[in-house]
Amino acid sequence: MFRLTTFGESHGPAIGGVIEGCPSGVKVDFQFIDTELQRRKTASSETVSQRMEPDQVEWLSGLLDGVTLGTPIAFLVRNVDACSEDYADLKDQFRPSHADYTYQKKYGIRDWRGGGRASARTMLPYVVAGAIAKQLLKDRGITVTASVTSIGGETDPTKQEALLRQCREAGDTVGGIVHGSILGLPAGLGEPLDNKFQACLAKAMFTIPAVKGFEYGDGFAMAGMKGSEANDLMIRRELQTPGNTDGSVTFLSNHSGGIQGGITNGEEVFFNVAFKPIPTLGRGDRHDVCALPRAVVIVEAMAAITVLQI
Amino acid sequence: MFRLTTFGESHGPAIGGVIEGCPSGVKVDFQFIDTELQRRKTASSETVSQRMEPDQVEWLSGLLDGVTLGTPIAFLVRNVDACSEDYADLKDQFRPSHADYTYQKKYGIRDWRGGGRASARTMLPYVVAGAIAKQLLKDRGITVTASVTSIGGETDPTKQEALLRQCREAGDTVGGIVHGSILGLPAGLGEPLDNKFQACLAKAMFTIPAVKGFEYGDGFAMAGMKGSEANDLMIRRELQTPGNTDGSVTFLSNHSGGIQGGITNGEEVFFNVAFKPIPTLGRGDRHDVCALPRAVVIVEAMAAITVLQI
Amino acid sequence: MFRLTTFGESHGPAIGGVIEGCPSGVKVDFQFIDTELQRRKTASSETVSQRMEPDQVEWLSGLLDGVTLGTPIAFLVRNVDACSEDYADLKDQFRPSHADYTYQKKYGIRDWRGGGRASARTMLPYVVAGAIAKQLLKDRGITVTASVTSIGGETDPTKQEALLRQCREAGDTVGGIVHGSILGLPAGLGEPLDNKFQACLAKAMFTIPAVKGFEYGDGFAMAGMKGSEANDLMIRRELQTPGNTDGSVTFLSNHSGGIQGGITNGEEVFFNVAFKPIPTLGRGDRHDVCALPRAVVIVEAMAAITVLQI
Amino acid sequence: MFRLTTFGESHGPAIGGVIEGCPSGVKVDFQFIDTELQRRKTASSETVSQRMEPDQVEWLSGLLDGVTLGTPIAFLVRNVDACSEDYADLKDQFRPSHADYTYQKKYGIRDWRGGGRASARTMLPYVVAGAIAKQLLKDRGITVTASVTSIGGETDPTKQEALLRQCREAGDTVGGIVHGSILGLPAGLGEPLDNKFQACLAKAMFTIPAVKGFEYGDGFAMAGMKGSEANDLMIRRELQTPGNTDGSVTFLSNHSGGIQGGITNGEEVFFNVAFKPIPTLGRGDRHDVCALPRAVVIVEAMAAITVLQI
Repeated sequence: MFRLTTFGESHGPAIGGVIEGCPSGVKVDFQFIDTELQRRKTASSETVSQRMEPDQVEWLSGLLDGVTLGTPIAFLVRNVDACSEDYADLKDQFRPSHADYTYQKKYGIRDWRGGGRASARTMLPYVVAGAIAKQLLKDRGITVTASVTSIGGETDPTKQEALLRQCREAGDTVGGIVHGSILGLPAGLGEPLDNKFQACLAKAMFTIPAVKGFEYGDGFAMAGMKGSEANDLMIRRELQTPGNTDGSVTFLSNHSGGIQGGITNGEEVFFNVAFKPIPTLGRGDRHDVCALPRAVVIVEAMAAITVLQI
Repeated sequence: MFRLTTFGESHGPAIGGVIEGCPSGVKVDFQFIDTELQRRKTASSETVSQRMEPDQVEWLSGLLDGVTLGTPIAFLVRNVDACSEDYADLKDQFRPSHADYTYQKKYGIRDWRGGGRASARTMLPYVVAGAIAKQLLKDRGITVTASVTSIGGETDPTKQEALLRQCREAGDTVGGIVHGSILGLPAGLGEPLDNKFQACLAKAMFTIPAVKGFEYGDGFAMAGMKGSEANDLMIRRELQTPGNTDGSVTFLSNHSGGIQGGITNGEEVFFNVAFKPIPTLGRGDRHDVCALPRAVVIVEAMAAITVLQI
Repeated sequence: MFRLTTFGESHGPAIGGVIEGCPSGVKVDFQFIDTELQRRKTASSETVSQRMEPDQVEWLSGLLDGVTLGTPIAFLVRNVDACSEDYADLKDQFRPSHADYTYQKKYGIRDWRGGGRASARTMLPYVVAGAIAKQLLKDRGITVTASVTSIGGETDPTKQEALLRQCREAGDTVGGIVHGSILGLPAGLGEPLDNKFQACLAKAMFTIPAVKGFEYGDGFAMAGMKGSEANDLMIRRELQTPGNTDGSVTFLSNHSGGIQGGITNGEEVFFNVAFKPIPTLGRGDRHDVCALPRAVVIVEAMAAITVLQI
Repeated sequence: MFRLTTFGESHGPAIGGVIEGCPSGVKVDFQFIDTELQRRKTASSETVSQRMEPDQVEWLSGLLDGVTLGTPIAFLVRNVDACSEDYADLKDQFRPSHADYTYQKKYGIRDWRGGGRASARTMLPYVVAGAIAKQLLKDRGITVTASVTSIGGETDPTKQEALLRQCREAGDTVGGIVHGSILGLPAGLGEPLDNKFQACLAKAMFTIPAVKGFEYGDGFAMAGMKGSEANDLMIRRELQTPGNTDGSVTFLSNHSGGIQGGITNGEEVFFNVAFKPIPTLGRGDRHDVCALPRAVVIVEAMAAITVLQI
């Protein structure tokens, strides 16, 4: 099974991971990985500013001439632009709605430099592993995509840009929603109870910093529906075969979001992930107004890794 | 660690579980367990009708004179009211928005009698284990509660009753939302990344049949908030101690829902769970209109078990 | 993955287990399971006497008309012949070389009736699961067998019988060695480091009560060998194909015991398991002189389960 | 729980590991780690010759000013002396009793340079983690030691040296036995069945390359003993307290090796590990005659890590 162990603090020597269970004989698409890492960094000037690290991946093991050996694939990215001094005043402070206080209570010590292990930068190894996962899924005809559907409650892109500009000027931040989609999944993936497909997906999404909600299919809206509105009717493809209990079906709707009883039904799996606003307020070049644009590739990575683990 | 392995089909011989990692020397409160099981069954006549099993728990191991030995605690409940014949016509049918089709695709075989392993009855062992978990938590000053806050979009109890009556008459069903709360958690529980408190809680909730959404703290509403609205400010309790980095704080609000960076901060952990409507429509005595009332004790059980696993 | 969770104390209500990960659609050979359970009980009159339970397996879940559903298979065996009174004097005693003392230290409480969870009777669920595992392996052409090769240091069956008779008369007991063999394994099973085939097999064998040693291939004897004696030479089957790095080979010897670098090479995997003598001394009808004969089926079960987990 | 994930091929860029579950606030003794790594390299000139890497550990995460943060501790050691060309002729060859063939069968590809992932060099991260584990155990009064007790069947050190000299001249190699000891363990560690102390220890030892046998306590010798010889009698320390079932005892012997029923009894845990001879024969400077001297620190590391995981 595809497994990722990650390590690293935001301003420590490096951030990285070890991928176990990657199949052997796969020619890794390093360019795609770089593109994905770039997606985590690039965003419109209205939303984020960023550290200038090149995010250069160094590969440590598990590869021979760029082909996977089946053994653990370790990699790291150096934290070259780590200006710890910028954070020296945080040493004795707990920033509101950050993890400073909870880390201190749990460990009795914390890396106060730039959020340490609680920094969003810790998602970087998931993006690397997610890129490899996507490559593996692509070979099976499965694609994972995501996009920002709402920022601060706004779904209209023009109004979103205006809102972001306002926030930047006011030194404020804003949350939003990322919509994810998995296409090409065969029917029959997932487990009946303890590892339902949606439960694994939810767990993965809540691993991302700032995530406060997850829903799949019609989600919370279904809590307000009647059964007669919510059910997904289906038609047997082989109605002519009497007594057929195994034949595939065509679904007439997909309120369920591609999963029933914890197991995929072959339809699109789609879901929404709610992000709270970035807690760090104030003006300045390194002030992020909204994490959503760079969260998209992380949501995709988490979904891709999850599918490989089911 | 407290671990539950469950087994059983709705109309097989029995449903049950094995609890591993329960501390030794605990005098089990069997009466409380029965009360909890009864909560899973009892509901207003408007919402549900039910099978008449007594849900009598038979204890198989791990106890000596009602006291836990520290070894696996196995238990079962017989399915005495299992009228398989009622379901004979389902043998060759896939009911819409049930797991019939997906089980068939995954396993090539399914227990068509009353939903088999996909029946909500499979939650029974979680209620038993949840009752024991609650007893253990109570000794640590931790309480888990839940309640129905919305049915079919209605939050007013009178209007909820009317809606349920309408649905019953129309042979329809309706979804809703359960609100959960965990009080008394110490600060410092949870993990920074792969097993965040909220991620484990979300996974547990999505194990429950019919759950389509989960949010904690202000949840999806935070996607529409600004940082200046969403942050939880705090005051050092020992402001007089300069350089104090370890002292506890008082939070002025709890938008976060008691968790920051995956780790509890000592405040109330609260969350919402969205349920879709029951997919089985039609009139009759065994027709359930709404699963919400009996879902409350299941949500509590899942939360209690999760806390013990963190 | 095939997983077994077991439960039960020797003189509690029941002993049993839950098998997860068994493939669906398998028609279980219940007669074979009974035969295996009988092997755990039957032994020459010289070696053991036994409780008279019928060891009747009751199946609780995971089956429909005797065919596996893919869901958890739970089963139990009642402890019908449990005369707890026989053991009342053990309540305040720690029997030498039993687990009485260590359980008391770990749990602060113990089931003093017949060894409780430390009784060899706890191996019963492994025998049931092992029988199912053997059935699954048989379909893949893999067979697991074991036999007693040494009792009290004696390898000659006639001398073994004499030794057992002496021990019975003297109220003494004696240890021995079980030799195990797995035939038909394909090359390529196992993991390079953390889950080497032999490591998983060793762990499984040391789960059996009274096991003090495990070796595979030429085992401890190899510690006294030179490399020139110990190496297993091989011949390429397709010597005519130049540059062939994938082709199969023929091994000229098997000192390695079928495993190299943690991974099977396609040869027989064979191993020895050393058992200490039964610690309970004294005369009487329920006095076991030697556990070895009934250990054979347990060693086989453990090996069969292990293979399915690799 | 203390967990180690390792990575690296012998001649890849680096070998390393990620330690999760190390307590926070521990000032790491880097000098001790270097000493332990040196023990893996140093040995009398008769037994081994070695690669000249400095084995310089680079710490990547989990530390602040040399103190553990409680987060994952990642580290690596570069393979600076990796002369892949020396092994170019192995590309199309399977060396006897190496893992070349089995890796090829499992993965369809292998790193043929110096054994790749099957090299004994992969034990290096275990030695690093083992050194940290020893430091943690020392604070609890637990010490782990090991020594070579037999080489090629010889227990007399003078004869061992002579044997090694012979082997060196003949281009041959030889196996041996390492004896391990764990002192200071409290009674009550381990699990009754699936994770018995000895089972976890055995699994850890069989992770080491070339290990063919493991025994604890009197081990295989107990298979030849009678119960009257093998039992460990004990005396209650507080005989004057009637009805005392919890009081500690004094053991009069320790054939059991400090474990009963899978759980420690407070006595010394001791064990033997059998190593086969190094399979690579032939003369030359880089020819290792015997792996035993450098295996000692690895056996200790494995034991120390295991204790922390129980």
